[in-house]
Amino acid sequence: MAPILGIDLGGTKIAAIVVDADDAPVASISVPTDDRPLGDQLVSAARQALDAAGTEYRPAAIGSGAPGLVDSKAGVLRMAANLAAVDLPLAAIVGDALGVPCFVEHDGRAAAAWLYQQRGGDGSLAYLIVGTGISVAVIVDGRPMRGAHGLAGEIGHVVAVADGPLCACGLRGCLEAVAAGPAVARQVAAAVASGERTSLPLGADAELVYRAAADGDPLAVEVTETVGRFLARAIRGLVLAYGVDRVLVGGGLARAGAPFLDPINRELDRERHASWLARQALPPDLIELLPPDTDAGARGAVVIARSGLRAAGPGERGQREVEDG
Amino acid sequence: MAPILGIDLGGTKIAAIVVDADDAPVASISVPTDDRPLGDQLVSAARQALDAAGTEYRPAAIGSGAPGLVDSKAGVLRMAANLAAVDLPLAAIVGDALGVPCFVEHDGRAAAAWLYQQRGGDGSLAYLIVGTGISVAVIVDGRPMRGAHGLAGEIGHVVAVADGPLCACGLRGCLEAVAAGPAVARQVAAAVASGERTSLPLGADAELVYRAAADGDPLAVEVTETVGRFLARAIRGLVLAYGVDRVLVGGGLARAGAPFLDPINRELDRERHASWLARQALPPDLIELLPPDTDAGARGAVVIARSGLRAAGPGERGQREVEDG
Repeated sequence: MAPILGIDLGGTKIAAIVVDADDAPVASISVPTDDRPLGDQLVSAARQALDAAGTEYRPAAIGSGAPGLVDSKAGVLRMAANLAAVDLPLAAIVGDALGVPCFVEHDGRAAAAWLYQQRGGDGSLAYLIVGTGISVAVIVDGRPMRGAHGLAGEIGHVVAVADGPLCACGLRGCLEAVAAGPAVARQVAAAVASGERTSLPLGADAELVYRAAADGDPLAVEVTETVGRFLARAIRGLVLAYGVDRVLVGGGLARAGAPFLDPINRELDRERHASWLARQALPPDLIELLPPDTDAGARGAVVIARSGLRAAGPGERGQREVEDG
Repeated sequence: MAPILGIDLGGTKIAAIVVDADDAPVASISVPTDDRPLGDQLVSAARQALDAAGTEYRPAAIGSGAPGLVDSKAGVLRMAANLAAVDLPLAAIVGDALGVPCFVEHDGRAAAAWLYQQRGGDGSLAYLIVGTGISVAVIVDGRPMRGAHGLAGEIGHVVAVADGPLCACGLRGCLEAVAAGPAVARQVAAAVASGERTSLPLGADAELVYRAAADGDPLAVEVTETVGRFLARAIRGLVLAYGVDRVLVGGGLARAGAPFLDPINRELDRERHASWLARQALPPDLIELLPPDTDAGARGAVVIARSGLRAAGPGERGQREVEDG
């Protein structure tokens, strides 16, 4: 094995890590995204991480995780609404600039690949990300589920409330519209505006709401319990659809820790109590919250690069070279 | 290849088919289930089919599809609530009685395997069964999704209506509790009892309701539209979770044809109209209704037997022999 550079392109920051031949981290950086073209930002973040690592850690490959609709075969970011990106050939841009093969994967699936490896690399695993949006990456017997159009895991747009609030996607009652970060903030704002009893200000964001819930604020408790109920049901749906027996939860909201997790587990407990099927499908240790500082994104990008190298064979050709050849 | 016997154990009938070396049907039978032990019933149905086929079609293996929680590796039907079966070693019982290796699989997954093969054997496919219960069998890149505990596809117990009607499983608002056959009958019975305008009698079953909907009965139309909306949303959830691009629909309710399918497609059209994501994920030809006379169950059992034989290798050993050996 050789050193690898892993890059995680997020909505607000780019994280990059260089690992040595044994996968031990050598250097890592995190920079906020800015107004330059995405490709330029990735290349400069990559260079910063490589500079920090030093020349003896020249990578054999680069992996990059990106949000949105990723064509991992072609190495192209097809669509990322939050980044205003359409058909961006990330693998070619980064690979050509650094002179190293580059492999691209959906950020959630990349992170899930690393988490799966960390946990022994067998069985199945779902990595649920609850932040500005909600999505899931599922690995079954070592294989990431991509779906026919790369849309597998977009469960933020599964119905949570029939004919519920309008979602940014155009549909009504989507899980994201009632349980993602902006939905938490919206619910609180509406309640504050209508004079409900709370210590929260009108513009409170989800992070603040979860802190207030931990302090017992009645509105914050009510909203976070409701969100927990919706997420628990989504997790049940996930488990029943895929049959996974481990659900790792990360993302902005999950960073709140217990105030985020407890309402979910309370609802799952109610379901277990009510139903044989729920007891079978939802074991007590089903959900695991990732530690807030987990750099699963960049580590996942490293895993993607290593498996890309293996698949490409001894020639060590990246997506760009495979496409052109 | 050699002749194969496929058996489909259903809630109310057992269907069996003998195919020749080229998979052409030689004989098929269908008998109602009765009060004898399930193993005896399967063995006698198997013998009837073999008698009908004649001695020149002695099968190299038997495949059997069964509902409920099936341990296909051990050849055991772990739990089938509707059949009152617990830990029934089907592969051993049938294999020993007939002196031929026997392979057992979940009925929906067996049927899906055949449907997948029929449709070219590539990509992914979901086979949604809407009858007394609701479940789905999903095949991704040729691999049936089983889940960690064989529970993958139990989407009848995903939430359709938050805090909705109580489901037989003990939870509230499950898809089955609002969109399966008994739920259709219950909704109509409640409306008839409360004096709603309809041609339907109090005890109308789902089949009658769909016939009345085709004739324009206002209550039947209202109920079947509602069911279609719930099923469309479940299908959207399925597509977003798994990323499948083909959903075949079968089962008792689907036999109604257009009065069953049209309300689903109307709701999907509304979603496509409202949302870019829905247009991406839900292509116009997403759903295909199986013809009412499709014997996907027994044909699927044949596919399971053939792949079991292949996996067992040249010795052609069934699950029982593999277990014991």
